[in-house]
Amino acid sequence: MTDAKTELPDAAASDPVALGWMTGFPPPADKAVTYADGSFRSFPQLRWSWSNVRQIVPTVNVWRGPGPASPLPRADVDLDGVAVTTMGGETISFAEALAQTFADGLVVLHRGKLVYERYFGALKPHQPHIGMSVTKSFTGTLAGILVADGLVDPAAPVTHYVPELAAGAFGDASVAEVMDMTTGLAYSEIYTDPKSDVWALRRANGMAPPLPGVPQLSLLEYLTTVAKQGEHGRVFAYKTVNTDVLAWILRRASGLSLSELLSTRIWQPMGAEEDAYYHVDRLGIESGGGGLNTTTRDLARFGELMRNRGAFNGRQIFPANVADDIARGGDPAKFAPAGYATLPGWSYRNQWWVSHNAHGAYMARGVYGQALYIDPKAEMVIARYASHPAAGNVANDPISLPAWMAVARHLMG
Amino acid sequence: MTDAKTELPDAAASDPVALGWMTGFPPPADKAVTYADGSFRSFPQLRWSWSNVRQIVPTVNVWRGPGPASPLPRADVDLDGVAVTTMGGETISFAEALAQTFADGLVVLHRGKLVYERYFGALKPHQPHIGMSVTKSFTGTLAGILVADGLVDPAAPVTHYVPELAAGAFGDASVAEVMDMTTGLAYSEIYTDPKSDVWALRRANGMAPPLPGVPQLSLLEYLTTVAKQGEHGRVFAYKTVNTDVLAWILRRASGLSLSELLSTRIWQPMGAEEDAYYHVDRLGIESGGGGLNTTTRDLARFGELMRNRGAFNGRQIFPANVADDIARGGDPAKFAPAGYATLPGWSYRNQWWVSHNAHGAYMARGVYGQALYIDPKAEMVIARYASHPAAGNVANDPISLPAWMAVARHLMG
Repeated sequence: MTDAKTELPDAAASDPVALGWMTGFPPPADKAVTYADGSFRSFPQLRWSWSNVRQIVPTVNVWRGPGPASPLPRADVDLDGVAVTTMGGETISFAEALAQTFADGLVVLHRGKLVYERYFGALKPHQPHIGMSVTKSFTGTLAGILVADGLVDPAAPVTHYVPELAAGAFGDASVAEVMDMTTGLAYSEIYTDPKSDVWALRRANGMAPPLPGVPQLSLLEYLTTVAKQGEHGRVFAYKTVNTDVLAWILRRASGLSLSELLSTRIWQPMGAEEDAYYHVDRLGIESGGGGLNTTTRDLARFGELMRNRGAFNGRQIFPANVADDIARGGDPAKFAPAGYATLPGWSYRNQWWVSHNAHGAYMARGVYGQALYIDPKAEMVIARYASHPAAGNVANDPISLPAWMAVARHLMG
Repeated sequence: MTDAKTELPDAAASDPVALGWMTGFPPPADKAVTYADGSFRSFPQLRWSWSNVRQIVPTVNVWRGPGPASPLPRADVDLDGVAVTTMGGETISFAEALAQTFADGLVVLHRGKLVYERYFGALKPHQPHIGMSVTKSFTGTLAGILVADGLVDPAAPVTHYVPELAAGAFGDASVAEVMDMTTGLAYSEIYTDPKSDVWALRRANGMAPPLPGVPQLSLLEYLTTVAKQGEHGRVFAYKTVNTDVLAWILRRASGLSLSELLSTRIWQPMGAEEDAYYHVDRLGIESGGGGLNTTTRDLARFGELMRNRGAFNGRQIFPANVADDIARGGDPAKFAPAGYATLPGWSYRNQWWVSHNAHGAYMARGVYGQALYIDPKAEMVIARYASHPAAGNVANDPISLPAWMAVARHLMG
């Protein structure tokens, strides 16, 4: 079936297993998904790719450590039939909402119990899926941890940690402005426009092949080329390069790679079930803005760790204030001018999206439908990986956001 | 210090951590090890690369499953001072033998107990290291398992499983000839010669960049280009393409990828401690001839599984005859003409090297010093990963082989 609005195949019709993408030994030419020809990024091929990034590009491991996985006790609740009224006014079932948002994996935790878990497409429970910009919320949380450690000062200039950035846009930005994305940058992030700066970032971070005859910049080299536009500190403007700069600040402040930081400060103590991984640039440097891949369950564990204010797996993993500061959110007045139609009254704080709704919900969000939704009032966490045909979440928010609230209400009884 | 014979830095002087290869954020230009410029394959850079292959090229995971790692009870024995008399007549300590062979990781098991374990260079206990042609012995063992299953017939023609190979060298070869590498192939494997066919194989299997302007072949496409030279079945001739053909036979016979086969038939049941991985070609197909990366301990576990004739971790993982058939070896008369000066009287059987010595020892062997040594009489297994400056094992055999025997005698008491 095709979707009437997009004229693209729907979730069932684009199922990568049914379509046979990358199946067979070898996959036939018309079923191959490769890096060199860019097909891994096209729909419906990306329905395979986003579950198999390490087969496409070089990566670095985030070790889970030698211990057992933290338990996720099961208490199944059948949410398939929960009624969801979309922003468009249509009423559909939760199961249908998952299909319409091209979910690859979905885990719902309620009061720390795993109440609902589904996998679709090319994803399996033990398999990491790319988080896209969900990665940013991990970078932000690690930044909060290093601030709590006293290793990073939000009031300091970026150049205190990364002097190479002095000549460009970040030369007069503070760490706090980078954390909250209130820098003024001449950098465009339009996923559908191949001339947008986001493509230059991708060529630098390893997720797009270099242009023929053009030297391949490393991630840091690219960041030095970003120019200033407007003023810092005024308004929120979502630009991935901020998070990549923040990741550089964390490396310089800690002396550790992002993968080592994530492993030692979160992945090992929270008892992740599987290793995670980042894709890397030509120098082995992680994409802190979009390169993290985890299992759906481990993403949910991270959500539960946030919901429990840093306490999980029998220990206080980071200070409660790191999570509290994020959950409180930023300034909605700085967020409003960005004009996110599906996110009225929201704010952005330290790489997280904060709803300021009655439940105090906040989110990690990544293109193509990646989502970690934390609802403190409902004591609920939802982790969803997806492979939506459209990059921008405005395409799935009208279904997703009401769906999360409908499930929250159902679980609250 | 430099080695007097090679004029290359010795193990201490080439230590990748001390030299700072790929350290710093980012590594400085003169400490960078990259894929595009081929530096990852040069010495001493390869002292970093062979412990970090997934940061250089795309890979596929070999899942260890959800269970606990199989126990490796410790019973430390200090082997550092064991005297080793090299083939050249020099007497050195075992610790010195490890340094002179550029060991990155070494695990010795005796009667199933971990008696000695050391890490050097860029390797850590939980980190996978490339096995190079040690990979072949995994492919061969999996072939033995599928033969025992009745899924692969050694007497069948290769084309029964892989008809695409009909026109080339493998068109009239049997599965058994491929397993034992007694095919006659116009294929040269000279690691020091950039015009050798092994480089074309590397460009196809993903471990070397494509030549400018030349379309990148997939692994299977490359294998169809290999021509016949001489006759099949006469003598042993070590050519990696045989193993890649064998891997294709396994995929076609089982309907599973090599990584799925290794995970389900060996890695999960033996209780591997960490996931392993293969590097892959542009279509996601594993290099069955040289692409497997494992931790040193997990390589030792696999050796113990072989030594115990398929029984390990409380179960019979594959039929004893699969291991017995390998341990018995092949025909030394077919092996002798290959002229391996350091391996007199040895044979090659189903992708393993068999000594026919008084201990019945047999080995998995990979370039740059990768080794899995199984000594049934001494009830000993030695796993060594290394990053020797010379690819060919003839450079380290004069030290390594006497060292394994010296340790075996020491442990036998």
